[in-house]
Amino acid sequence: MSTSTSAQQPAVTVLGLGPMGRALAGAFLDAGVRTTVWNRTPGREQDLVARGAVAAASAQEAVAASALTVVCVVNYDAADAILRPDAVTAALKGRTLVNLTADTPDRARDTGAWAAAHGIRYLDGAIMTPTPSIGTPDAVFIHSGPEDLYREHRPVLDVLGGTHTHLGEDIGRAAAYDIALLDIFWTSMAGYAHALAVAKAEGVSARELTPFAQGIATILPPLFEEFAADVDSGSYSGRLNPLTSGASSMAHIIHASEAHGIEAALMRATEGLAQRAIAHGHGGDGFIRVAELLGRTAVPAGA
Amino acid sequence: MSTSTSAQQPAVTVLGLGPMGRALAGAFLDAGVRTTVWNRTPGREQDLVARGAVAAASAQEAVAASALTVVCVVNYDAADAILRPDAVTAALKGRTLVNLTADTPDRARDTGAWAAAHGIRYLDGAIMTPTPSIGTPDAVFIHSGPEDLYREHRPVLDVLGGTHTHLGEDIGRAAAYDIALLDIFWTSMAGYAHALAVAKAEGVSARELTPFAQGIATILPPLFEEFAADVDSGSYSGRLNPLTSGASSMAHIIHASEAHGIEAALMRATEGLAQRAIAHGHGGDGFIRVAELLGRTAVPAGA
Ligand SMILES: NC(=O)c1ccc[n+]([C@@H]2O[C@H](COP(=O)([O-])OP(=O)(O)OC[C@H]3O[C@@H](n4cnc5c(N)ncnc54)[C@H](OP(=O)(O)O)[C@@H]3O)[C@@H](O)[C@H]2O)c1
Ligand SMILES: NC(=O)c1ccc[n+]([C@@H]2O[C@H](COP(=O)([O-])OP(=O)(O)OC[C@H]3O[C@@H](n4cnc5c(N)ncnc54)[C@H](OP(=O)(O)O)[C@@H]3O)[C@@H](O)[C@H]2O)c1
Repeated sequence: MSTSTSAQQPAVTVLGLGPMGRALAGAFLDAGVRTTVWNRTPGREQDLVARGAVAAASAQEAVAASALTVVCVVNYDAADAILRPDAVTAALKGRTLVNLTADTPDRARDTGAWAAAHGIRYLDGAIMTPTPSIGTPDAVFIHSGPEDLYREHRPVLDVLGGTHTHLGEDIGRAAAYDIALLDIFWTSMAGYAHALAVAKAEGVSARELTPFAQGIATILPPLFEEFAADVDSGSYSGRLNPLTSGASSMAHIIHASEAHGIEAALMRATEGLAQRAIAHGHGGDGFIRVAELLGRTAVPAGA
Repeated sequence: MSTSTSAQQPAVTVLGLGPMGRALAGAFLDAGVRTTVWNRTPGREQDLVARGAVAAASAQEAVAASALTVVCVVNYDAADAILRPDAVTAALKGRTLVNLTADTPDRARDTGAWAAAHGIRYLDGAIMTPTPSIGTPDAVFIHSGPEDLYREHRPVLDVLGGTHTHLGEDIGRAAAYDIALLDIFWTSMAGYAHALAVAKAEGVSARELTPFAQGIATILPPLFEEFAADVDSGSYSGRLNPLTSGASSMAHIIHASEAHGIEAALMRATEGLAQRAIAHGHGGDGFIRVAELLGRTAVPAGA
């Protein structure tokens, strides 16, 4: 294994070979990028090696093999366990680290400070689409950190496919978006899982419900846009769909669910938010008034 | 006001002039259908009358004006308050009532029994898209009840635009779908509202977050399909995204939210479901395993 990189042939190291790390390494390989891989638990690199990847014997050896290392593991505790041993940190000095692991903005900022203290060029990012999207136009990546560093590595990141957006120099910004977007994702998935359970109790199979569930996903984007404008302007018109009407539907959902013996904790929390907004005199407003209500107790970042 | 209807000119009565009732009446008027309207609180019919609607002085007079009445109010308590007084029930005898009000399957079945007992031809339905969709190809309507009755009135319902689906003769079926679909809708909206509050605390405006939030909505339909197949087959592969990975993200969201002083009840409930599935030994499965977990306590309809 050589530590030299030629200007002609880009080289990348991928640390972490879970489903996402494997998808990233696979996309680099498909694009003809020289790819070195490493994973804590050995064995996951075998098919990647068959496709041309170089297997490193240690994380230190892996990062030394490329000017650019991409790390993608379960969280920053795992990333720290890989990156912060002295030998690995020393090997990263002067090189670029792109961290595509999901975690909180605080952890991203902490990692940025660690990287700065050790002369490591650092970008923090997140992936907003599932593994099969990697290497296709559907992939969505967000990045934050020094803009010139982003520009320098953008060509090689581009082989991962899809859309890459640099959100700003604040190293925590990609994680802030990531947290908010995963909040929508996981809450929606939990709603979907609950809906499938209720539907099944009513004799409706997942396959029968799903085309209509997909229809619900389709109506979200224009509503998100409308509601975003409401939130940023501080006006929350319920002219087309007042909170009182939504709260009535939420009560039906809870009732129907619990009548089947299925707990409805999420919908109880949702209805609780709606009822709080109504109790504050906002029953004629649109549902997104609850965002303002939730935000009333917020302590801004850095406060 | 005449109670006669000609074969050439369809006639419809709309009861309830909230945002949705007004949209329905407007679509009938746009299509040249003779439209009679009534609302509990007077005054909401004025612009519809200017567009050609006939204002009835009472619900009884309204239903007597057309062979087909569409009712769309906040819930079945409201619908009952309008329809079950003796004079209105008597006036509906031999006519068709299409109830597009949202409520539970039980209430739909109860209304079906009431209609049968009073010689009222009854279809129960629901609307799965927002008011601006009405009269456009985007509208989605679901119906249940006697198929011949649905076929008979389908031409006039079609002027409401979009897609109409007859889900079966069980009068509660449309409400069962409606409950499940609104479960997804309102849970997703609550997730979005929470995400906007967290983003704002991180200095990210709703307008900045929204294009990415729309991206999240876009990845849902293929995942819904994949997960539906898992649920119906009872296999829950986490090969591409194991529950343990999702649970880690959920913990980050709770942490980041609460660090800003923003309560995270929905994500706590979501993470609780994930942790329960993990505790049952399903950490390597996909998230949709929680649908099966929720359903374990379910009592099927009619049990
Ligand atoms: N899968 C998706 O659809 C998807 C989509 C968008 C974003 N992401 C994000 O991508 C990241 C990776 O996700 P994933 O899908 O690949 O699966 P994952 O289960 O989140 O991560 C698995 C990886 O983390 C490593 N790991 C766990 N604990 C470790 C530790 N203490 N020390 C060192 N390594 C450790 C695993 O190594 P071992 O093999 O040794 O356990 C494996 O390489 C996550 O942050 C996830 O949120 C995933
Ligand atoms: N708006 C949407 O985007 C949307 C989308 C899909 C489905 N829906 C469903 O459509 C139905 C109607 O919704 P909406 O948007 O028009 O607003 P809504 O606030 O749910 O309903 C308002 C209507 O209900 C009537 N009403 C309330 N309580 C009543 C009572 N005790 N007796 C008689 N009438 C009563 C109101 O009359 P007054 O004017 O006299 O109060 C008004 O006509 C609901 O079931 C809703 O879930 C709405």
